[in-house]
Amino acid sequence: MNPNPVNEARARQERFAHGMEVLTRVDGEAGRRVIDALADISPELGHQVAAWAFGEMYDRPGLGPRDRQLVTLGILTALGGCEPQLEVHVNAALNVGLGPQEIVEALLHSAVYCGMPKALNATLVAKKVFGERGLLPRPTEDR
Amino acid sequence: MNPNPVNEARARQERFAHGMEVLTRVDGEAGRRVIDALADISPELGHQVAAWAFGEMYDRPGLGPRDRQLVTLGILTALGGCEPQLEVHVNAALNVGLGPQEIVEALLHSAVYCGMPKALNATLVAKKVFGERGLLPRPTEDR
Amino acid sequence: MNPNPVNEARARQERFAHGMEVLTRVDGEAGRRVIDALADISPELGHQVAAWAFGEMYDRPGLGPRDRQLVTLGILTALGGCEPQLEVHVNAALNVGLGPQEIVEALLHSAVYCGMPKALNATLVAKKVFGERGLLPRPTEDR
Amino acid sequence: MNPNPVNEARARQERFAHGMEVLTRVDGEAGRRVIDALADISPELGHQVAAWAFGEMYDRPGLGPRDRQLVTLGILTALGGCEPQLEVHVNAALNVGLGPQEIVEALLHSAVYCGMPKALNATLVAKKVFGERGLLPRPTEDR
Amino acid sequence: MNPNPVNEARARQERFAHGMEVLTRVDGEAGRRVIDALADISPELGHQVAAWAFGEMYDRPGLGPRDRQLVTLGILTALGGCEPQLEVHVNAALNVGLGPQEIVEALLHSAVYCGMPKALNATLVAKKVFGERGLLPRPTEDR
Amino acid sequence: MNPNPVNEARARQERFAHGMEVLTRVDGEAGRRVIDALADISPELGHQVAAWAFGEMYDRPGLGPRDRQLVTLGILTALGGCEPQLEVHVNAALNVGLGPQEIVEALLHSAVYCGMPKALNATLVAKKVFGERGLLPRPTEDR
Repeated sequence: MNPNPVNEARARQERFAHGMEVLTRVDGEAGRRVIDALADISPELGHQVAAWAFGEMYDRPGLGPRDRQLVTLGILTALGGCEPQLEVHVNAALNVGLGPQEIVEALLHSAVYCGMPKALNATLVAKKVFGERGLLPRPTEDR
Repeated sequence: MNPNPVNEARARQERFAHGMEVLTRVDGEAGRRVIDALADISPELGHQVAAWAFGEMYDRPGLGPRDRQLVTLGILTALGGCEPQLEVHVNAALNVGLGPQEIVEALLHSAVYCGMPKALNATLVAKKVFGERGLLPRPTEDR
Repeated sequence: MNPNPVNEARARQERFAHGMEVLTRVDGEAGRRVIDALADISPELGHQVAAWAFGEMYDRPGLGPRDRQLVTLGILTALGGCEPQLEVHVNAALNVGLGPQEIVEALLHSAVYCGMPKALNATLVAKKVFGERGLLPRPTEDR
Repeated sequence: MNPNPVNEARARQERFAHGMEVLTRVDGEAGRRVIDALADISPELGHQVAAWAFGEMYDRPGLGPRDRQLVTLGILTALGGCEPQLEVHVNAALNVGLGPQEIVEALLHSAVYCGMPKALNATLVAKKVFGERGLLPRPTEDR
Repeated sequence: MNPNPVNEARARQERFAHGMEVLTRVDGEAGRRVIDALADISPELGHQVAAWAFGEMYDRPGLGPRDRQLVTLGILTALGGCEPQLEVHVNAALNVGLGPQEIVEALLHSAVYCGMPKALNATLVAKKVFGERGLLPRPTEDR
Repeated sequence: MNPNPVNEARARQERFAHGMEVLTRVDGEAGRRVIDALADISPELGHQVAAWAFGEMYDRPGLGPRDRQLVTLGILTALGGCEPQLEVHVNAALNVGLGPQEIVEALLHSAVYCGMPKALNATLVAKKVFGERGLLPRPTEDR
């Protein structure tokens, strides 16, 4: 109680630094660019994305990074209108060990639960990311 | 081309039977009850859930059953208003090998992407399912 | 300009009365009950549903009542969480000439565009309404 | 049971060919382009759009093509973020016999159920399609 | 009853004129451009936005213009896919007396309820509007 | 860096205690009950609602409690399927100084942006809360 402002500012700064570490490990350069884009309009939102979403939530034990991306891909596909975030997270999914085929299959699977249009939109985001990373055309592994 | 109606009916029946097999393996009794509830209003929707969603989509290689449930939990939490389906799929998640702690963690994770209210609604569905399966209170593994 | 308050109140009252006429024709008793439920909390919302949504929008030429219900069923199914309104509008659909089979088929069709869970939720609302109107079980017309 | 792989591959190919026929009839060139865009990223999603969504679901009796487009316009408007699919389906709506005035009226109607912003977004998609097909300005039939 | 068509057309025209007055006061030029864009495709939607949404709903007593924009910012952020409308309403929010800091804080607050992706999308819309109005970079008032 | 686990546990506990203080001030008993309901299934979600959502986000300067509730009412109405949270926040809105008439007006206003069904659902939640707090019938202040 009765917190010391200097200590509090340091704790806040440490939480941000730790969050940026997790964010960079998961999302790579794309994640950093989001925080940078917020600097002149809502640095606090940038702080919360880094310190809370990544430093605190992502970093929890109990569910591995690969599993977290599967959940995240499902959510972002279902929400709709989150193509910029999907782009970051398709990159993140590749970064944490999901294979291109698994990502494509997860988005195909989503058609059952949120319909063809959102599955199509998400798949075309994956196409963009895969193209940038030299992963297209995918080898024909479909049965 | 020029399909034989008898063969076609048989193929359709086989696809349904195969789908029900997959559906029962993944969703258990809860899945069967959905198909039964549709029998007098939209047997075709029941057919499509079994034959297409499970027999064709779920059964594809390229993403394991556990991974598919993580994506599905993400989607259903994000959509909102799908508590009955979440109930079936929290059960399914347990059936295909996700631990209670992983499910709870996936729903906690969803708060970052679709907000606290939907994460709360989904977590209370998990509470109901866990209670029915004797999994409450969960051991205190949180750090 | 410079409107006369007495005339304005009369115009407002006439728009409400006309709206209630259209609302009752389309939605029947269920529509009236919505307006009644609003009387002690938001009579103005009741006024707008009647006078604007029905008296002005529904009553426009250019799209028949049956067509409007098809659009409405699509919207309410896609929105999710609008089961009370779907119930009113499945009734409305029957009132304006859509057959039970057409309604069920429209909800089945919606699975392609908004996924199985929302199609299921909407179909179970139709089951409730059809049951109340003695339309169950439906004759087996599926191919 | 014990399916013959050659027969199964042929059945799959036939379902795709039939679906492409229905898809082309309803959506025209725009539909084909969606399938083509998926070829190097998720040919299976392309297959499911053609073989299942069009070959199996669209092609069912019980609801005519014009009625299916009304439902589809309602769903896509309500979902939001599905402007590319709306563009395909405004074209489809014109292809299967909905007049420009009926389409515009359906989107106006949607404002009652999903609000002005989504009705505006959908109407501006219709404006783009109508413009490309030489249907603008529309004759002033509004009362 | 038995309305005089000339009087009715005049009443309709007066409601539109009044609505345009309110719309221009709240949304400024951006609001006018929306109505103009609708002129050749759905003048009736333009009429309803002006006459009903602004002339009738916005203009009601009981909630001030500043409060209405707070509610509207919350809704548009949550809906997703409504970036064009958010742009109009971030402008409107500034017009009716919300400070840049309050707008940014409202969008940050929305992250709790509808998740980070939608809060990010909305904040980047605010960044665009603030940039056009010379309000960037914001002074560092964050604690 | 190299954090001391005892200090960290204390900091975490302090953040929770502070959050519960803010939560109780805003949401009253209803807020506490949410945290309690999570205790045996996801105590971490309860922690995050208290410590982060309330202790950190709600408690920020830059937007007053009354304004935050207006944004929150808009979001929850638009999301749909969040009736339990709306109930908590209609109570919260009354607690922080919004009058019953202002709340009803905000929900009426939402009809413009997210349509009549969601405005109706939210208004009926308000009716339930107002009834429990002896605020019904509302005095007839509508013009």
